[in-house]
Amino acid sequence: MRDVYVIGAGQTAFGSFPERGYRELFAEAYAAARDRVDHGLDTDDVDEAVVATLGVGGRQIGLSGPAVTEHVGLHNVPCSRIENACGAGGFAVRQGVQAIKSGMADVVLAGGFEVMTDMSGDTTKYWLGVSGETEWERLTGTTFSGVYAQMASAYLDAYDATPEDLSRVAVKNHANGAKNPKAHLGFECSLEDAVAAPAVADPLNLYHCCPTSDGAAAVLLASEDVVAEYTDERVRVAGVGAASERVGLAERDSYTSISASQEAGKRAYERARIGPDDLDFAEVHDCFAIAELIAYEDLGFCEPGEAPQLLREGVTDPNGDLPVNTSGGLKSKGHPIGATGTGQVVEVFDQLTGNAGDRQLEDPRYGLTHNVGGSGGATAVHIFEQEVAR
Amino acid sequence: MRDVYVIGAGQTAFGSFPERGYRELFAEAYAAARDRVDHGLDTDDVDEAVVATLGVGGRQIGLSGPAVTEHVGLHNVPCSRIENACGAGGFAVRQGVQAIKSGMADVVLAGGFEVMTDMSGDTTKYWLGVSGETEWERLTGTTFSGVYAQMASAYLDAYDATPEDLSRVAVKNHANGAKNPKAHLGFECSLEDAVAAPAVADPLNLYHCCPTSDGAAAVLLASEDVVAEYTDERVRVAGVGAASERVGLAERDSYTSISASQEAGKRAYERARIGPDDLDFAEVHDCFAIAELIAYEDLGFCEPGEAPQLLREGVTDPNGDLPVNTSGGLKSKGHPIGATGTGQVVEVFDQLTGNAGDRQLEDPRYGLTHNVGGSGGATAVHIFEQEVAR
Repeated sequence: MRDVYVIGAGQTAFGSFPERGYRELFAEAYAAARDRVDHGLDTDDVDEAVVATLGVGGRQIGLSGPAVTEHVGLHNVPCSRIENACGAGGFAVRQGVQAIKSGMADVVLAGGFEVMTDMSGDTTKYWLGVSGETEWERLTGTTFSGVYAQMASAYLDAYDATPEDLSRVAVKNHANGAKNPKAHLGFECSLEDAVAAPAVADPLNLYHCCPTSDGAAAVLLASEDVVAEYTDERVRVAGVGAASERVGLAERDSYTSISASQEAGKRAYERARIGPDDLDFAEVHDCFAIAELIAYEDLGFCEPGEAPQLLREGVTDPNGDLPVNTSGGLKSKGHPIGATGTGQVVEVFDQLTGNAGDRQLEDPRYGLTHNVGGSGGATAVHIFEQEVAR
Repeated sequence: MRDVYVIGAGQTAFGSFPERGYRELFAEAYAAARDRVDHGLDTDDVDEAVVATLGVGGRQIGLSGPAVTEHVGLHNVPCSRIENACGAGGFAVRQGVQAIKSGMADVVLAGGFEVMTDMSGDTTKYWLGVSGETEWERLTGTTFSGVYAQMASAYLDAYDATPEDLSRVAVKNHANGAKNPKAHLGFECSLEDAVAAPAVADPLNLYHCCPTSDGAAAVLLASEDVVAEYTDERVRVAGVGAASERVGLAERDSYTSISASQEAGKRAYERARIGPDDLDFAEVHDCFAIAELIAYEDLGFCEPGEAPQLLREGVTDPNGDLPVNTSGGLKSKGHPIGATGTGQVVEVFDQLTGNAGDRQLEDPRYGLTHNVGGSGGATAVHIFEQEVAR
């Protein structure tokens, strides 16, 4: 099957923009992605579009895909909306890859958006709650933070880990996000402040939770047959992996790992024909600090229980062996649900093409994205390779 | 690119089942599809799942795909939810086809479900309203029937057509649905009764509108490389076409045609290398009677304005040259939104394999499905071919 390349990727700032419309956010992200296509791209060249959004709220409910693609002048292209809660964006990229590999499209737009801050009430609770399981989590009053708090409790109980280790995730990701002009919470935080933050759902405190963000991000994919028309960059989608799992936490075999992430990672490595040791950096789904620790283990960066040590030793710092979330991650960069997965690809594209500014890593070759829906009901993993200039 | 085959397809009855759960409906449809796989299918053989649902209401909002696939024992397979309003099912089938053609899957489950009758209030209005455009249709008080009523008014004004022609759609489809044990409104109606029905949104009366239904339908697809393991039937996906268009009616060039349907049809014919004249039957999206007339024209069954004549002459009757909606269509069989597109494939599979009971056509070779989202914001068309036993 033919190879697929990223020819452009761009995003809006992530933040709190209750005054902005979802269509204009999407349009800004699409324009940013187009601007990154070296030799230019006409909207008429786009064969297909996939749009990720959870889409709760007073916007277009049915047909929310075509509702945004029409706004950027994409008429008559096949367009559908993908929803996999917080993992929708990763699955949109995956569907774009399949569309191209199938031979049915040469250029695909995979975009995502969310406007989360224009609802009254406790928006985080209501919004993210729908990503939890319905009958036994949401309707019984368990918040989404509460779901991840259960995973954190189990993890701290099972391994040599402390709440301070969770706070280290925040410190690292905020330090990264402070260098990202698109970050929602683009400021540094000290370990002392992170540890002293008020509780949200014990053992998770405020600095263990990502913000509720608005934003959009877009990725342009092209087949190997046409990539040279658009760019001299060679950012190849080297591996794609995805899996689903029981939506409700209580139905699963483990609270300290996510089988969908393990399977998705395994498949992506197999397709890319590399292992975790070959990675130069990764963007992982740190909706809560515990999620980043579990991701290290599910993706094979270390053995179960060793994630805190990896973090303490600085392995995942920008100057470590395997930098994680150089963008700031969901914690600092932000988490506008439908835009998160495509936003991760924006960071990887920027890093692999030398456009990551103050966050630029030295000559990276392989970057991974890891996007989780809910507390692990669905995960999409992608591995990208910079083929040239080695 | 390799060919894709339907190896099984099945559905629940469509009807009003407010007491039934969405998971068990999905499971019943999946079991029905599996039962139709001649040599049997293990759930472990399914590589990927795509689930169509509009998903409004008190069910799983995020992750509604994995929420139903886990219930049938599908763990760890990639699964995502597709939403394109009433066209979601057609797009789910399309995504399944792409997954197989991409080489990333050999067996895919494309399923859809909806439970619409367990809401209080005017469910038709609320449910279908979200398939209309938001700002200028839904929020200004235009019901979804109202949107199609505008198309009907424009059509009756532009061409030699009367409200009685619209009623003929109901008479034909109810006659067909009366022979379908899965139909929601499986009774015949006379032209007199259809014409005399109370107004819903002038010129549309009650018999010009499909019901609000519950139900689920599932389609099992397999690659040419593995199809013989599962069945000796050779129901090939000969052509796939899809397109999107402006969601809001007022933004479009025409009220009497749907450009997304025209484009989707054109692409499906091109891929199948046949024309409308080669078709033996079709399942078209008759959410309102006017939609069936417009479909005849958009899909090239006749020229613009000639659809009423086609109907009057009996061309689309079961014994005509091109039977349309032998299942009863959305009008009589029912319209459980996410299940409609996959349900159309069930009828085509039944017809092409000689399992359509009292509705069986004589030795059909080519059947088409046409599934529309909203009032035409997105359309998916598929053409299926019975390759053997000619």
